[in-house]
Amino acid sequence: MKLGFLTAALPGMALNEVAGWAAESGFGMLEIASWPKGKAERRYAGVSHIDVAGLDKAGAKEIRSMLSGHGLDISSLAYYPNYLAPDSGQRQIVAEHLKNVIDAAVLLEVPIVGTFVGADQAKSARDNMDDFATVWPPLVKYAGEREIKVAIENCPMVWEQTWPGGQNVAYSPSIWTRMFEIIPDENFGLNMDPSHLIWQFIDEVRVIQDFRDRIFHFHAKDMEIDREMLYQDGVLGAGFSWAIPRLPGLGAVKWPEVIAALYRNGYDYVVSIEHEDRAFEGDEELVKRGFYLARDVLNPYIV
Amino acid sequence: MKLGFLTAALPGMALNEVAGWAAESGFGMLEIASWPKGKAERRYAGVSHIDVAGLDKAGAKEIRSMLSGHGLDISSLAYYPNYLAPDSGQRQIVAEHLKNVIDAAVLLEVPIVGTFVGADQAKSARDNMDDFATVWPPLVKYAGEREIKVAIENCPMVWEQTWPGGQNVAYSPSIWTRMFEIIPDENFGLNMDPSHLIWQFIDEVRVIQDFRDRIFHFHAKDMEIDREMLYQDGVLGAGFSWAIPRLPGLGAVKWPEVIAALYRNGYDYVVSIEHEDRAFEGDEELVKRGFYLARDVLNPYIV
Amino acid sequence: MKLGFLTAALPGMALNEVAGWAAESGFGMLEIASWPKGKAERRYAGVSHIDVAGLDKAGAKEIRSMLSGHGLDISSLAYYPNYLAPDSGQRQIVAEHLKNVIDAAVLLEVPIVGTFVGADQAKSARDNMDDFATVWPPLVKYAGEREIKVAIENCPMVWEQTWPGGQNVAYSPSIWTRMFEIIPDENFGLNMDPSHLIWQFIDEVRVIQDFRDRIFHFHAKDMEIDREMLYQDGVLGAGFSWAIPRLPGLGAVKWPEVIAALYRNGYDYVVSIEHEDRAFEGDEELVKRGFYLARDVLNPYIV
Amino acid sequence: MKLGFLTAALPGMALNEVAGWAAESGFGMLEIASWPKGKAERRYAGVSHIDVAGLDKAGAKEIRSMLSGHGLDISSLAYYPNYLAPDSGQRQIVAEHLKNVIDAAVLLEVPIVGTFVGADQAKSARDNMDDFATVWPPLVKYAGEREIKVAIENCPMVWEQTWPGGQNVAYSPSIWTRMFEIIPDENFGLNMDPSHLIWQFIDEVRVIQDFRDRIFHFHAKDMEIDREMLYQDGVLGAGFSWAIPRLPGLGAVKWPEVIAALYRNGYDYVVSIEHEDRAFEGDEELVKRGFYLARDVLNPYIV
Amino acid sequence: MKLGFLTAALPGMALNEVAGWAAESGFGMLEIASWPKGKAERRYAGVSHIDVAGLDKAGAKEIRSMLSGHGLDISSLAYYPNYLAPDSGQRQIVAEHLKNVIDAAVLLEVPIVGTFVGADQAKSARDNMDDFATVWPPLVKYAGEREIKVAIENCPMVWEQTWPGGQNVAYSPSIWTRMFEIIPDENFGLNMDPSHLIWQFIDEVRVIQDFRDRIFHFHAKDMEIDREMLYQDGVLGAGFSWAIPRLPGLGAVKWPEVIAALYRNGYDYVVSIEHEDRAFEGDEELVKRGFYLARDVLNPYIV
Amino acid sequence: MKLGFLTAALPGMALNEVAGWAAESGFGMLEIASWPKGKAERRYAGVSHIDVAGLDKAGAKEIRSMLSGHGLDISSLAYYPNYLAPDSGQRQIVAEHLKNVIDAAVLLEVPIVGTFVGADQAKSARDNMDDFATVWPPLVKYAGEREIKVAIENCPMVWEQTWPGGQNVAYSPSIWTRMFEIIPDENFGLNMDPSHLIWQFIDEVRVIQDFRDRIFHFHAKDMEIDREMLYQDGVLGAGFSWAIPRLPGLGAVKWPEVIAALYRNGYDYVVSIEHEDRAFEGDEELVKRGFYLARDVLNPYIV
Repeated sequence: MKLGFLTAALPGMALNEVAGWAAESGFGMLEIASWPKGKAERRYAGVSHIDVAGLDKAGAKEIRSMLSGHGLDISSLAYYPNYLAPDSGQRQIVAEHLKNVIDAAVLLEVPIVGTFVGADQAKSARDNMDDFATVWPPLVKYAGEREIKVAIENCPMVWEQTWPGGQNVAYSPSIWTRMFEIIPDENFGLNMDPSHLIWQFIDEVRVIQDFRDRIFHFHAKDMEIDREMLYQDGVLGAGFSWAIPRLPGLGAVKWPEVIAALYRNGYDYVVSIEHEDRAFEGDEELVKRGFYLARDVLNPYIV
Repeated sequence: MKLGFLTAALPGMALNEVAGWAAESGFGMLEIASWPKGKAERRYAGVSHIDVAGLDKAGAKEIRSMLSGHGLDISSLAYYPNYLAPDSGQRQIVAEHLKNVIDAAVLLEVPIVGTFVGADQAKSARDNMDDFATVWPPLVKYAGEREIKVAIENCPMVWEQTWPGGQNVAYSPSIWTRMFEIIPDENFGLNMDPSHLIWQFIDEVRVIQDFRDRIFHFHAKDMEIDREMLYQDGVLGAGFSWAIPRLPGLGAVKWPEVIAALYRNGYDYVVSIEHEDRAFEGDEELVKRGFYLARDVLNPYIV
Repeated sequence: MKLGFLTAALPGMALNEVAGWAAESGFGMLEIASWPKGKAERRYAGVSHIDVAGLDKAGAKEIRSMLSGHGLDISSLAYYPNYLAPDSGQRQIVAEHLKNVIDAAVLLEVPIVGTFVGADQAKSARDNMDDFATVWPPLVKYAGEREIKVAIENCPMVWEQTWPGGQNVAYSPSIWTRMFEIIPDENFGLNMDPSHLIWQFIDEVRVIQDFRDRIFHFHAKDMEIDREMLYQDGVLGAGFSWAIPRLPGLGAVKWPEVIAALYRNGYDYVVSIEHEDRAFEGDEELVKRGFYLARDVLNPYIV
Repeated sequence: MKLGFLTAALPGMALNEVAGWAAESGFGMLEIASWPKGKAERRYAGVSHIDVAGLDKAGAKEIRSMLSGHGLDISSLAYYPNYLAPDSGQRQIVAEHLKNVIDAAVLLEVPIVGTFVGADQAKSARDNMDDFATVWPPLVKYAGEREIKVAIENCPMVWEQTWPGGQNVAYSPSIWTRMFEIIPDENFGLNMDPSHLIWQFIDEVRVIQDFRDRIFHFHAKDMEIDREMLYQDGVLGAGFSWAIPRLPGLGAVKWPEVIAALYRNGYDYVVSIEHEDRAFEGDEELVKRGFYLARDVLNPYIV
Repeated sequence: MKLGFLTAALPGMALNEVAGWAAESGFGMLEIASWPKGKAERRYAGVSHIDVAGLDKAGAKEIRSMLSGHGLDISSLAYYPNYLAPDSGQRQIVAEHLKNVIDAAVLLEVPIVGTFVGADQAKSARDNMDDFATVWPPLVKYAGEREIKVAIENCPMVWEQTWPGGQNVAYSPSIWTRMFEIIPDENFGLNMDPSHLIWQFIDEVRVIQDFRDRIFHFHAKDMEIDREMLYQDGVLGAGFSWAIPRLPGLGAVKWPEVIAALYRNGYDYVVSIEHEDRAFEGDEELVKRGFYLARDVLNPYIV
Repeated sequence: MKLGFLTAALPGMALNEVAGWAAESGFGMLEIASWPKGKAERRYAGVSHIDVAGLDKAGAKEIRSMLSGHGLDISSLAYYPNYLAPDSGQRQIVAEHLKNVIDAAVLLEVPIVGTFVGADQAKSARDNMDDFATVWPPLVKYAGEREIKVAIENCPMVWEQTWPGGQNVAYSPSIWTRMFEIIPDENFGLNMDPSHLIWQFIDEVRVIQDFRDRIFHFHAKDMEIDREMLYQDGVLGAGFSWAIPRLPGLGAVKWPEVIAALYRNGYDYVVSIEHEDRAFEGDEELVKRGFYLARDVLNPYIV
């Protein structure tokens, strides 16, 4: 395996700066933020380390050359919008940009694009799956024709503003099973993030076993359960007060069992750190210290 | 303590029939369904074993005499509607009926009326608490002036039709704390049902300790967690598939610890079985067998 | 449900004496030992409370009349030999007697016959299943034609003399699954005994869920794990020193969860106490005290 | 086994009143308080239901006759003073009274006398054991010559006034082992009370296994651990705030495992309820309700 | 955070030798033993790596320069005597030396002095707190006027010679709460050592949460619970036989959760290894190996 | 301690190649495969990195010199055949080779030879111990006379072909106790491998405590329990489907507690990685990656 990270946590650094720091810090892969150029719409979203819409062969070659000079590979291009938003105009805009990301992956020789399936937060999971069945088949087909895999992250995107349904319906085993019934294509799979399973009380190790053929990419993020706040607010509080994103090693994910399961399945690709730990935010130095901690905790298991 | 039950599970029997069966089956108290006469709006709701709106002194005396003939007391009158529904007309109708129930409690010499606080299911808990602060103080005052206690049950009333917010916002310790800050009146408290805490992963024994001064009435209902379905749907599935109402003894409530905590707090009133176990429904005989099981499981602890 | 017991633990009493004691002790059903007349070959085996080979219509009517006079039903006829013994002569003898038991069940209007599938103790489970596929289809067919269900108990029949393979291969979920693939007939199922699952570290509650359609009859026996001896001998000691048969309530079976699962599945038949607890053996009085304890522990859950 | 209780919790009733109530309540044995006549020195201590010092043959015969008329046996005579108090005068007084109790046991044909070994609360356990080796051999010999067993209860007698060493050093497995090395006499053993093991985090079920040959008498008392107060005060708080005596079934003792272990050891004598639950004290009726609860919780296991 | 250690475990090395080894071994801070010159009174106590009483500006400057040459900071000065000893003469001597340590901290520009509050081992915690209220306010004021923080370690200092009360009453959450009620000064806090909480069964992670504003300094020491000896001696054995000091990583402290909690609270100071593991004592080389192990276990979490 | 590994996992490399890679990878010791030259009879068995039968003083000196040039020591010579096979000819052949291994250990100045005791797989453990008592005393004496220790590994050598008894009876605490009763010689002990205890549900940490004087050598191998397959096949499945050999850190062994116990016992020798993890097999590079992972997981604890 190789250790990597999602570049979105370093929005103030240019890609070559990120690459330089990653290489000297011992990382081997980058999951590169590929939002459209423009203003970030939420924390970490909207970051763009590659302008995929404006990328041509020459630009792609330059990037690949710069990265290989640092001994780095791109594990995936990252673009996580809402394809099932109520507004059909927005649906079209993000779908168009996904095609740009896929095209860029082809130019950059990156095998995977990571994204969400989206959701209309006012609808139930069942109703969102109906929309999914309409919106997603052509997108997966577009990627498949270009030999690009689409890896869906399992973050429910639920917070106070997106309560109750969240903006990404792909959050549970029963829903993934339904997803792969609707789209059985081999280039459609998961960017599995175990942290989102912790607060749902879903066993993250069993998930790795059950969906072994669909896990294309793996996120290293952790989740702490604040027991006092869980008591105060309960499950109906939807984790707003008691599910706290942490760096790997600082939460409840059973990392040795998780990585043991990945190896047993023959997974031999990236473990990509996603940094959303508020205790290590605020300035770039603190963000980097967070990455160091995650790296040092995971490194013994990465060979 | 005394063992009782909520009469709503026996809608086909008249009150004196219920009382006869209760007495010969060894129960000591009844929690009497007191909905307005008319059609049931949901399973078990809408049942009326006493027509409180039409009750006068003579009628009350007759009921008390019939019950005392069976050696039975009324633990509370039960009316569980939605006082915070979006429609202000409905709000007024149910508030009026609550006053009828309170008046009937006076006539029947019953110290407690059990009910919900209600909720607008489309609103967050915080927003519902704003409405609560407007709607509820006069109702509690009305009861207080008549020396009647109001006991709020902690059922969130969340199911697929009432998703996501449910129709009773009084479901968690942090919310009860807020409730009693807004209305500190001594006649305002809880009809605690531990089953609703189980699927929220809230420790039911600590709740009894923390809210010892506010628990006026106690429900004996249990909740089974279906571990396989919890894995499939997670917490975001809101328990629809994995939280299964059971009779006391057939679920995850720690009854000996629960009852030990009640005794330690000096609680010496009713343990009232609420029967919503689908494995014991369908015909009256099966419902009764369910009550027998609950009775036999709890009886050793009831002295 | 009804509480019953396997009569084999009372070999010194005639059937009418057993019935008299059972009725006055509050039992509702009997699982009647139906071995061929003759000498017991192992503890409790070989007991015969009905001589099925010699039974005719008149004799059956007499038995039924005697039992109904005591308010008792027969839950099943019990005959537990080894149909897959290496010696083909023995195979034939026991198969013939099984037919006698089935015929007797018809005469006695008993819907179920309980038995083992047997095993050649020197063979692996896989090889025994090959023999099963030859020996058992005609037996199940014979019963099916007479509308009698065959319920296989899941005891592995492993002790020092039958080590390593035991004399009944039907001991684990994977084997039952294979069994019902080979014989999918609706009259073929299980006489589930949770005690044998405990020392195999198989979750007895999940078994009830997974095999809900195949559980025809249920044994109430318990198993204590002696932790010190498990440490000394380990799993390779095959439980001889550390798996100790006990009466229900004195071992590790989670009875409330077990019975809750049975009710949830709609099981509404016998819970039949099997008494093999050496702490309650030696004289008939002690055996009876054992049955009283089991009865009193289970009774609150039997309605 | 038989269910009994220690009569000290009913100081206001004469022995024949206690016996009458015990018999009609379904108890089979009494552990009779046998302090010297006079003022109680602590809660429940000092109660005297038999004046052993003044007992003669005729008086003993009368008591035995009265009890057998109620179908009751005496499980033991109870006298729990401090034989190792610093003051040698007090040591002599209590030793003399113990001899009276032993003599009374002979007259009453009671096989067991229950007591403490005592302790000097200012000394370490080791130093107290030196005193034990001097004081106790003649007392055990006195009893042995009269075929009376001495059963030492394992209560440490530690509270704020007797902090830190308590007034009975016989509180842990290592100390009992030492005790029986010093006095190996067969008539010297334990009146085991599992509640005192709970708050010491000593496994009560293993104790029953390890000291099976020395358990002559068994107390049914329970202990609740108040987790919040354990957090606040820790083990150095010595349980004053967090170890709460409860009736059997209301605390942390694993009763089914405890009784299963007793049966497995062949113990077939009394389970004697000791009532020190403050939630059931204050008036005699409440004390009796406490006994009813304990009885009903234990009864299914007593055969 | 920075990794440091308490220098008391290396009594045979001069401060500059300790500093040289610390720097080359990758440590960033030192907690420097500052007992008065003279004979050690107990294991590790009495060590003096700085003669604070004889320190002047020049000497302090020299030490600071030597340490900064090694890239090291002083996390705190360490002096852990008994301020509440029964003898008032001793009380005065140690209080005087504390002022020397505080003065030295000013000269050395060290923000924190670590110490005990002390205790009279024959008194209860409550009585010791009365003495605390007299002795400690002027000491905290003295430090505050010089902008030095006083950090109290939570070791109870209980062993056979100091049984039962120990020589430092500051050992539990309820006592710290009382301490900070008596002295609310902002420069008064804790040098938290989680190992002492383990054997008291106090949750070390909750302590970090509850006392987040008072934790000025953090000790990395671990505690193993010997389960067999806990069974033999119980809680009343006060941990002498079953609480075994270990290096971090070799005991029961949940280090990842502990450090996660510290980061979440914004703690960004020293994690200071206290070495009292007898398996790594006896010669200086073994002591150093112990420090290497602790360093390597903690290092991944120190960024 | 020193980190080492068993060379059998690298059968394609010559000893000096193994040594070179070991040294540059940071290992300090080698456990050298010493089977007779010839064809491997099972996975990893039969590997020979030293031809012990043909070894003379000069050859031994050369090997020692080569290894010390790499800074390496030999922790033990490894030869793991079946001394208790039914065929007496085979018994003699392997016993003769063991003497060769012992002689080679003398020449190479290696203090320990590691091996099995063997077993007749068709016999019970008890019967195998009878053979052990005949076969083993002269072998241990032979080694003792040459001051060589014999360390028996505790692998039961049970798989489908060696079912049920396996080919090494030395697999449980009760058997080791018996072994050391039969042969109490001080040069007879264990090469403890905790992985084989995991699937037998034997506490590996207690084993280290209980057999502290007999553990001469320690294997670092891990075992994963596949919970789904344990449910399907149970303990009678003997772990074939559910006990999965893993590298240290990827299974259920509690490594920090294990190593803490070793240090506490004063064990200060090798922790020797045994690599049998199928997820890291297939080519030499993958095998090496497996060793890197094991090394990095264990290294923080090795000082």
